[in-house]
Order: sequence, then C-alpha cells, then structure tokens
Amino acid sequence: MGTLLKNAHHFPAVPQAGLELGTARRAEFVNITPRLQEIVQCNGWKEGILTAFVPHTTAGITIQEGADPDVVYDILGWLERTIPWVDPSYRHGEGNTAAHIKASLLGSSIRCLLEEGRLRLGTWQAVFFCEFDGPRNRKVWVSFEPASSP
Amino acid sequence: MGTLLKNAHHFPAVPQAGLELGTARRAEFVNITPRLQEIVQCNGWKEGILTAFVPHTTAGITIQEGADPDVVYDILGWLERTIPWVDPSYRHGEGNTAAHIKASLLGSSIRCLLEEGRLRLGTWQAVFFCEFDGPRNRKVWVSFEPASSP
Amino acid sequence: MGTLLKNAHHFPAVPQAGLELGTARRAEFVNITPRLQEIVQCNGWKEGILTAFVPHTTAGITIQEGADPDVVYDILGWLERTIPWVDPSYRHGEGNTAAHIKASLLGSSIRCLLEEGRLRLGTWQAVFFCEFDGPRNRKVWVSFEPASSP
Repeated sequence: MGTLLKNAHHFPAVPQAGLELGTARRAEFVNITPRLQEIVQCNGWKEGILTAFVPHTTAGITIQEGADPDVVYDILGWLERTIPWVDPSYRHGEGNTAAHIKASLLGSSIRCLLEEGRLRLGTWQAVFFCEFDGPRNRKVWVSFEPASSP
Repeated sequence: MGTLLKNAHHFPAVPQAGLELGTARRAEFVNITPRLQEIVQCNGWKEGILTAFVPHTTAGITIQEGADPDVVYDILGWLERTIPWVDPSYRHGEGNTAAHIKASLLGSSIRCLLEEGRLRLGTWQAVFFCEFDGPRNRKVWVSFEPASSP
Repeated sequence: MGTLLKNAHHFPAVPQAGLELGTARRAEFVNITPRLQEIVQCNGWKEGILTAFVPHTTAGITIQEGADPDVVYDILGWLERTIPWVDPSYRHGEGNTAAHIKASLLGSSIRCLLEEGRLRLGTWQAVFFCEFDGPRNRKVWVSFEPASSP
C-alpha cells in the first residue's frame, strides 16, 4: 500500500505526498495507479492536476495500457533490443548506461487530471513506474495542484 | 473546429475542455495548435499554463516544427523504421504493439505557457497530436492553470 | 549567469522568467540546474512547481544524472548511433532531421517541485538542456506555480 513520505507538517503550503515501492526485476513496469488513487483519497484531493515525479535517473514513468500485460512486456522487449545492456562504446563505469538512456526516453514525470477525487484517465490507461535497473527500493513523489475557478 | 467535451457545469471548479479529431492514416501527426488556441479563446483563458493530455495508449503528443511538413514526415519515417509494425517477439494480440511503444516514447501530455490569451510557443513550434494506430476518432483533454500573483 | 528574459512588468500576473545559453557543439547536454536555482532565488519562489520549457524544435530537456559526465556522454552516443545525422530517407531540406527526432524523443519541458526555495531533485538528478543542432544561442522559459493550501 502507498506509504506517505511527507506529512502535512513537513509541507504546510504544498499538497505533496509520495509512495515507496520495491521492484523485483532488472526491468519491469509496475502499475501504480491504485496507489496514486489511494494517495488522492487519503489527502482529500478533489479537483485539479496531479504530477507524479520519479527522483531516480535509472527509472522512468509512463502512462500506458493497463489491461493486457503483454503491452508492457512488448515495450520492455523493444527497449532491451534497441538499447543493449552491454555496448563497447559505453563509458559510464557503473555498467547501467542502458537504464539511464531508457529513463530519459520515457521521462521523469507524468500529469493526470483529477475529477471528483478520481484520477481521470482514458479507458485503457494506467500509470506505470518503469524500473530499468532493479531490483531496488524506489520512490515516486506526488504533488497536487488544486483547480482554481475560471 | 474544436468541440468542447466538457462544459462548465460538469467541472464547476476546474477549467477543463477538450477536442475531438478524426485521423485519416495509421500514422500521422496532426497540428492541433489552432484548435488549442480556439479552446483558449472560447474559455477566456488569459495567463497561466495549458496542459494537453491524450487519453489513448496508441497515440501521443509532441511539440515540433510546424512550418515544414517534411519534419514530421521524417520523424514518422524514423519511428516506423526503428519500431517495426510486425516483429516475431511481440506478444500483444491486437497487433498494434508498435503504436504503444511509439506512444510511450513521445509521451501523453505537453505543457505550454499562455500569455495574454495566446499560446506562447517558440517561432517554429506547433503542437501535434501523434496518431500511431489510425484511422480513429480521438480526443485530447485540455486543462488550464491560471497564474497566481508572484 | 542566468539572464532574466522577462521582467515583472511584462508578466504582471504570471511568475515567469527565462535563461539564455550558448552551446558549443552540435550535440551536448548542458547542466542548467544552478541557473534554474538562481532564477528561483532571484524571484523569491518558495513552494510550488517549476516548469522549464524549451522553445526550440531541435533541442530538448531532460532530468538525468549530474554526477558522472559519462552518463550524458553515453546517452548522446546512443542517440547518435540510433538516429543517424545523414539518412537517404530524410526529406527535410535543412539537413537537421536527426535533431528534430531527438528533440521529440526527449521532450520540450520538465517539471520539478520546489521546497523552501530549492529545486527538489533526487540525489543524482540534474536538469539538462539537450542541444542537438548546435552550436547556437538558446533559451529556456521557466514558469512557477505557487502551491495552494490543501
């Protein structure tokens, strides 16, 4: 379940929260939609925009199909074939260059509208944390911008 | 012309709107800048930030050159060569894995500043809806965050 | 040092600013984190969300590791190998198609939380302007959304 990293007394003026997750493989997509929804409800956020930000450089975040797990399997496969883990031209000494490349291609944040306290996503959409150098313990920071009157 | 999917009485507190478009080919970039500008004007949005969000998993959105159509032609060509439509390693049964991959690479939302009721873009920039599994009827959700005083 | 492109009297209601930079090579990643931090301090922004937007179509922006310069070297190398500068299928007459492709893959904006007047980034993260068609004089537009009370 979603662990709140930041409580109200740490950020009196900023509606921020976060979640922690443990990944199990070197590369995997973890559907975090239920945990984001839980954060929204715990904080009483209703109408506005949610940003989910990944504070890591070997992981990303994307919105993709959540219904058929073969979709993210195929995306991971294409990334692995296109961005090889081992390449003689890589200089980075830690050996995880491919994970950094994948992270920058997928991006470090997503945005999603909130409506009546629910994430407003398309029919097939889910939010995925994209692990590219696991298994690791990871975090996602979440912020909320309440809607203003037009 | 831009069709407003959501009226004020559906979202009393959230400045949101949307547009619908029909794509004509399997893969194409549609310049939606004029329709976004129309939504901005219809809603009287003046100063702030606009987010355009694609609620689909086989389409994306990007900001690219709008002057020379060869630019988006070349981007589509590179994506097609790099992410083949047919690949024996794909598992997803619907056969549109390539479209899902392209969608996650391009991303599901863009942000753009608004200044005096106009989209504030660079000289050559335009906002493109990126169809990767058309032809289809598609939607773009648009939200507006009014600026606050510093 | 960060040059403020927009002063308060140009945008009375919008906390916006910008920076200018000159790039030295055709492709390079420039760490602009200190300059973004400088803009935050000059403007007295404290709690909220910062957006950095690149108004160009042959440059992008990404958040990546700032500690080991080999990481961005490796990302640039992969992009160069995967998106060749010269390709017989390119139509765009200016000859910089590869730069446009790279820009759309990396994206035109990043978001970052602000906490007590500081960019809130992960331990290894830095914000990089991604030049793909330099050397050129470039701009980054920066906007700030102050946090509201929950």
